[in-house]
Amino acid sequence: MDLFGIQKMNISAGSGRTMRVFIVHAHPEPNSFNGGLTRAAQGALSAAGHEVVISDLYAMGFNPVSDRRNFTTVGDANYYRQQAEEANAAAQGGFAPDIQAEMDKLFWCDVLILQFPLWWFGLPAILKGWVDRVFASGGRIYGGGKWYDRGVFAGKRAMCSVTIGGPPPIYSSRGLNGPIDAILFPINHGMLYFVGFTVIEPFLVHAPARISDGERQMWLDRYRERVLSLVHAPTITYPKLADFDDNHVLKLA
Amino acid sequence: MDLFGIQKMNISAGSGRTMRVFIVHAHPEPNSFNGGLTRAAQGALSAAGHEVVISDLYAMGFNPVSDRRNFTTVGDANYYRQQAEEANAAAQGGFAPDIQAEMDKLFWCDVLILQFPLWWFGLPAILKGWVDRVFASGGRIYGGGKWYDRGVFAGKRAMCSVTIGGPPPIYSSRGLNGPIDAILFPINHGMLYFVGFTVIEPFLVHAPARISDGERQMWLDRYRERVLSLVHAPTITYPKLADFDDNHVLKLA
Repeated sequence: MDLFGIQKMNISAGSGRTMRVFIVHAHPEPNSFNGGLTRAAQGALSAAGHEVVISDLYAMGFNPVSDRRNFTTVGDANYYRQQAEEANAAAQGGFAPDIQAEMDKLFWCDVLILQFPLWWFGLPAILKGWVDRVFASGGRIYGGGKWYDRGVFAGKRAMCSVTIGGPPPIYSSRGLNGPIDAILFPINHGMLYFVGFTVIEPFLVHAPARISDGERQMWLDRYRERVLSLVHAPTITYPKLADFDDNHVLKLA
Repeated sequence: MDLFGIQKMNISAGSGRTMRVFIVHAHPEPNSFNGGLTRAAQGALSAAGHEVVISDLYAMGFNPVSDRRNFTTVGDANYYRQQAEEANAAAQGGFAPDIQAEMDKLFWCDVLILQFPLWWFGLPAILKGWVDRVFASGGRIYGGGKWYDRGVFAGKRAMCSVTIGGPPPIYSSRGLNGPIDAILFPINHGMLYFVGFTVIEPFLVHAPARISDGERQMWLDRYRERVLSLVHAPTITYPKLADFDDNHVLKLA
């Protein structure tokens, strides 16, 4: 099932010039257009001398259910408070190996890419659970004042690369399904910016199953261009913590 | 683990007066405040003569990963197209037993409640995967022109009951985390309204771990009142399909 020929990550490697890209890939069909996009990114980045690490969640059999299996440690055996267990594990080095491995990749990378099909206006559950389990509190990934522009991953970039079943008008500002920016807000702002990433404008491909081979090739070419320009790609501007008052409400200008 | 003493659903039972309520419950700690809310709902509804069915996803060990295990049938063994497999299964009665059981509960109920803690500005993965797997296309749950106000579940009601870690200001219109209505839009509009439910205003409890026992009791009492008045509870007004043009863009008034 290892379609991407995933390389072993070499945490000590890399010069200042190379970019370290971590792709979290969530699609059940290896030969899907999502698979094509991730292979295109991997090929273009590797050819340009960058380093790429891929977590292919379906191929890994990643478990997305957040519970005590996130940890090797137990803070309170009688009552499961997830954030308290996360803080305890952070203090004791008690994250389960599958979680720790993903955390290591997050700290290793310069740029994180989430590659997924939009399912029910959000992340496929296997990827939502990757966030639920890996983005742990207690100061490891967030907490203790480390969030948004003061987040753990401040200085790194992140981007969603998304395939969407319907055509653009239905996701426009007056579209039936709602504006795509509004649909992706909980992901871009609530997950990626929350932990400190500067959020790159999403790469969107609409209705890949209904377009021609030529159009699909065009989108793969555009994606190769995008991943090679991740450090310059346009980003979403969000307010900073300093723009908010003590109740976390935006100050009026 | 069956904390709620889940009753066997009797699909043939019920008079016109009783309400059939289906609660999908997603929390790893049975004694959490989420558990308290679901037990409060169950107790109040049962005492009033209504019927309640609960899917306690963690207790059930529900698998949230959508893939070929959704089906007993195989449409195309070489390439997995989820919607095509769903249509094939719908035509042949080929949904896996765990999916079919949840579908049966959806068709049985008058009101659906999603009970969950807001994790990363969305559904916990185990509940997102319940939607990913159970809300199948091919006309079973949606498709073939059956969506939004012409959806399969038109005439039924649905509500999110949500616990939220932070206090209300941070989720207000100018709050740091974004407006709660915007955060819940992909769920209320994109999942519940999409398949036809009339969406009841969400029941929100902020920071249940940081409030007093007296306040928690007050919220449990309010929730009992809410579930007993589900047929009259205020609902969210969304545009109807007739309000959109052929490109699914809202017509200008």
